[in-house]
Amino acid sequence: MTNQLAARIPHPLDLRSVRIQDSYWGSYVDLIRDTVIPYQWEALNDRVPDAEPSHAIKNFRIAAGLEEGEFAGYFFQDTDLYKWLEAVGYSLATHPDPDLEKVADEAIELIAAAQREDGYVNTYFTVAKPGQRWTNLLDCHELYSAGHLIEGAVAYYYGTGKTRFLDVARRFADHIDELFGPNPGQLRGYDGHQELELALVKLYEATNEPRYLELASFQIEERGREPNYLVAEWEKRGRTSAWAPGVVQKSPPHMAYHQAHKPVREQDAATGHAVRAVYMYTAMADLALHKGDDSLLAACKRLWSNVTNKQMYVNGSIGSTHHGEAFTFDYDLPNDTNYSETCASIGLIFFARRMLQLEPKGEYGDVLERALYNTVTAGIAGDGKHYFYVNPMEVWPTASAGNPGKHHVKAVRQKWYGCACCPPNVARLLSSLGHYIYTANEDTLYAHLYIGSEAKLPLNGRQVTLSQKSSLPWGGEASLTIEAIEPASEQASSSGTFTLALRVPSWSRSTRFALNGQPVQPVINDGYAYLTRQWQAGDSFSIELDMTPQRLYSHSELRANAGRVALQRGPLVYAFEETDNGAPLAALSLSRGSEIRAVPSEWRSDVVLLEMEGIRLSEPSGQSGALYGVAPPEETKQKLVAVPYTLWGNRKPGEMTVWIRESR
Amino acid sequence: MTNQLAARIPHPLDLRSVRIQDSYWGSYVDLIRDTVIPYQWEALNDRVPDAEPSHAIKNFRIAAGLEEGEFAGYFFQDTDLYKWLEAVGYSLATHPDPDLEKVADEAIELIAAAQREDGYVNTYFTVAKPGQRWTNLLDCHELYSAGHLIEGAVAYYYGTGKTRFLDVARRFADHIDELFGPNPGQLRGYDGHQELELALVKLYEATNEPRYLELASFQIEERGREPNYLVAEWEKRGRTSAWAPGVVQKSPPHMAYHQAHKPVREQDAATGHAVRAVYMYTAMADLALHKGDDSLLAACKRLWSNVTNKQMYVNGSIGSTHHGEAFTFDYDLPNDTNYSETCASIGLIFFARRMLQLEPKGEYGDVLERALYNTVTAGIAGDGKHYFYVNPMEVWPTASAGNPGKHHVKAVRQKWYGCACCPPNVARLLSSLGHYIYTANEDTLYAHLYIGSEAKLPLNGRQVTLSQKSSLPWGGEASLTIEAIEPASEQASSSGTFTLALRVPSWSRSTRFALNGQPVQPVINDGYAYLTRQWQAGDSFSIELDMTPQRLYSHSELRANAGRVALQRGPLVYAFEETDNGAPLAALSLSRGSEIRAVPSEWRSDVVLLEMEGIRLSEPSGQSGALYGVAPPEETKQKLVAVPYTLWGNRKPGEMTVWIRESR
Repeated sequence: MTNQLAARIPHPLDLRSVRIQDSYWGSYVDLIRDTVIPYQWEALNDRVPDAEPSHAIKNFRIAAGLEEGEFAGYFFQDTDLYKWLEAVGYSLATHPDPDLEKVADEAIELIAAAQREDGYVNTYFTVAKPGQRWTNLLDCHELYSAGHLIEGAVAYYYGTGKTRFLDVARRFADHIDELFGPNPGQLRGYDGHQELELALVKLYEATNEPRYLELASFQIEERGREPNYLVAEWEKRGRTSAWAPGVVQKSPPHMAYHQAHKPVREQDAATGHAVRAVYMYTAMADLALHKGDDSLLAACKRLWSNVTNKQMYVNGSIGSTHHGEAFTFDYDLPNDTNYSETCASIGLIFFARRMLQLEPKGEYGDVLERALYNTVTAGIAGDGKHYFYVNPMEVWPTASAGNPGKHHVKAVRQKWYGCACCPPNVARLLSSLGHYIYTANEDTLYAHLYIGSEAKLPLNGRQVTLSQKSSLPWGGEASLTIEAIEPASEQASSSGTFTLALRVPSWSRSTRFALNGQPVQPVINDGYAYLTRQWQAGDSFSIELDMTPQRLYSHSELRANAGRVALQRGPLVYAFEETDNGAPLAALSLSRGSEIRAVPSEWRSDVVLLEMEGIRLSEPSGQSGALYGVAPPEETKQKLVAVPYTLWGNRKPGEMTVWIRESR
Repeated sequence: MTNQLAARIPHPLDLRSVRIQDSYWGSYVDLIRDTVIPYQWEALNDRVPDAEPSHAIKNFRIAAGLEEGEFAGYFFQDTDLYKWLEAVGYSLATHPDPDLEKVADEAIELIAAAQREDGYVNTYFTVAKPGQRWTNLLDCHELYSAGHLIEGAVAYYYGTGKTRFLDVARRFADHIDELFGPNPGQLRGYDGHQELELALVKLYEATNEPRYLELASFQIEERGREPNYLVAEWEKRGRTSAWAPGVVQKSPPHMAYHQAHKPVREQDAATGHAVRAVYMYTAMADLALHKGDDSLLAACKRLWSNVTNKQMYVNGSIGSTHHGEAFTFDYDLPNDTNYSETCASIGLIFFARRMLQLEPKGEYGDVLERALYNTVTAGIAGDGKHYFYVNPMEVWPTASAGNPGKHHVKAVRQKWYGCACCPPNVARLLSSLGHYIYTANEDTLYAHLYIGSEAKLPLNGRQVTLSQKSSLPWGGEASLTIEAIEPASEQASSSGTFTLALRVPSWSRSTRFALNGQPVQPVINDGYAYLTRQWQAGDSFSIELDMTPQRLYSHSELRANAGRVALQRGPLVYAFEETDNGAPLAALSLSRGSEIRAVPSEWRSDVVLLEMEGIRLSEPSGQSGALYGVAPPEETKQKLVAVPYTLWGNRKPGEMTVWIRESR
């Protein structure tokens, strides 16, 4: 990439340059820092009562020779520690904390102690399977775990300036770079679970070492090529899976599950494990960006369109089935059995941010916002210690308990799991929220999210300090104010010519803009409002979004939602809970003509609820209790109450539904 | 049971006394005799191209020492032959066929040759697991297989008068009777899959040997008692399952799955594997009948009520989940993932007939009719060679292929399966249809089903010949005509005083009766119309049923059907198919006020279709193709066509639904 091109491509701001000061998001960020990060450290050390032990720290101690014992946990157990360190790195960037940093430094020393002479780090193979490295890339998450190590190291380096962990990561990356590649004697392989690729791009960005970018590119390009590496590897080890040792499998593993059924540039529909897919798309977009690769960008756009226009739930979640935590096919979005893993929405946010760098278009910001407000935060309870891995569109607790096809649908958030992917993923995303609010190139600052914050960045050569105020998600006002512009020289004035671009969410049906309080008509292009001028300190560019509650309808091919409606106000999707509306929720419908009123909540003073008139169906009088009868159900008017989906399941457990029947 | 009591309890007629002459059912009976029985014999001999081999005959040849080889198939593979012989026995009762009888006799000789010295017959244990008999009643279907042997033998004895197979069965039953029982040294066990119990009652009825009734009673009473036999057996063999050899299981098998979680008299909700459950309830009803056991009858009534008022689909099918082919819990009747195994409805019909013997109440006949017309025949294709094991309420073929949670939902009937339980079960039920049309006690003939037929039976000491004419299911007229009454003596007249009782289906909202063409008002009691008089040859008692198409609504607790309606005309439940209505079917709704017209079919001249006005939702004009939008869908009027559910899937494969959204 030329320097000129690089200057034009918007990039996220350094976390240390973004300070979040927001009444809504501030509490999440504080929760992560004050509760989640300390809690997860306890979990990694097996000190959370009644929760499944993690064994992650113990595995490292055993691998480092500090303790006797056997490896325990999943193949990828190490990554829980890496993701925690990544979150710590982000947190320290904005909130220095010597005590936390000391704990993290010690954990990093433990990782360093577990690193082998040749740079290799992986407690599963080191402790449990010595001599079997790189023989089962399909199942064992070996490169995946390396990727999380690298992401953790890069974050910790940015957050603290310390290079100890980054050095561990570079040694491991160099070792992988020696082993994997196109040259004779090298392995042409890639992981069954994508992750290393996007991590290597970050390592490249942090170190400017082009070998890391090339290694990422190599693994992306090799994927799905014939002869298929993963299938050949499976043949070579005797057609077995690490998930079912000793069983000789009749048919080869499904490559579509691993997005390795064809070369990535030829893929046009999302398949298989949802997290793997979006992590791969993220790396593809990274590579398209850094290499200016238009054909790879075209593949990214096709896959983006397929995911968001054919396979995404209204809360920005993905993965229609719990069988393999996977995508199924276009318009297959059942509400009562969806998987919608929290981690997958986090991956979708990663992908969206890269797409926003490639093209500042509203559709990317809209999806990023949708997933962030309605799935990521839904995944975590107010106490920071309970999580949803699955984010259902519809819950009937009795069915979750009594119908085996719905056992994965939990009616209440769970404690730390054995497979604890989601909690540390939420922690690392929310502690790096500053990466998602803005991007900037040499002359334009893009505000993608309305989150109160202060940002410092150079624009057209001037160091600019801006503050954002936002009343979202409850109110619709937001503004960017120029706090200071550092003159280019002592002689120059404290002003600068540059562009501020505000995202215009597609849910805002009438949007007003003001410059210093006076109506202004910015240039609207692809979902962004651009205002270019000579800015002075004190100037303010504000936006007023339409917060009228809206009914959402689904595409007519989306069978599960036919005749149904969902509600949204601002960025928030709403849900109906039994505790407000009574059971069965299926008996309720919302009248087409009914006004939807935004009302304050008695439950939490900051929360806006929606109220409306609905109809309840009930047994016709004199009914015998038979399952089927000829008498139509009785209809009774009933006030309905909807709560923001992200807050569901925080009161009395019960039924929940996002999509409600619409009556005329 | 006293003789006096026995005389008052209605019993089914001997098959040889019932000759079916019905334009609707005749073709099914002919199909079974002319096509299915010969086809299944080919299947048992592994001669059906492209179908999974059965290996059933081969297993017997190996067990009999006539051939070298290894056992293949399921533990219960033998039962496919037994069920086939049962169907043959029924068929020969009404349609003598020397060629078929010769083939069957040879198969029986093969079974006899495979029988061990001590009476034991089971090719799995004889060939594959010698020395391991009776060590795994939970998994291995050993007593279950014995039960099917006995049922086959009894049917063949009634159908042909030959005792060869019955003798094999008695020797095996005597062997089991020696091994199992309450005495010291005997096993207090019972099978993981109920079946032997109901078979032993049949053997008792055929032989008058009370030991068989007592053995059935013993196994029913032992079931679910503490200490639990099946759990103790599992402990004893090292906590393993025959389904996963070598794996030591952490927790004991779920006894509710086997209906062995508590004594049968204490059970009040259907749980677990649906076929096992209804086979057990059938035996319980048999025992309540033969022993005059009111507390057992009370348990039967509770379980009947739970199944039919809480856990039954509108087509008379049961088993809400494919996980274990099982019941789930009250009102959990999802349409898109139901199992509804054909065999389970057959078992429900068995249960219903016993309940009808215990109490001639319309509810039993209604369910029997519902399951027979709408599930059993739906399970078999017009060619007699393709079968549904699963009878879905809703099909989206793309989802059956692309969503793993719906792989069990087949959009087209399948060839013979490896686990070929349903095809021979359909064959044995339809070839014994004569058992279900009538029951009679000393003075009353009950007609439960309207199926054209001739019946001969004694009533109050006179030999009576009746003929039934019926236009069902397409028309609503049926009649019983006295063809002849054999005088008690040469002096006596050709008349007799007895009662004819016609079932009044609950779906007939206005029913008229006539005696010899003149309106008559019979005594209506619990769903039956009783007419007692001195009958003369030529007298005719007729019924005219209301065939107006009806909308059915579900109980409001049945969440899956809220806001939905199904259609029924006469005994037939209807379904909407893509081939008539276009996809997606979910976009269609039926207006509350729309008239439902019965119209002749162009497809099959005998078939009555339903036509009505509906509404299709489609994308609003100018829609971008986005998944979610604020514009309500466009509504277009459309003529809807519904076909009898039992005939669905006989044309172009596509979507199907029974429950359709109702609009106002």
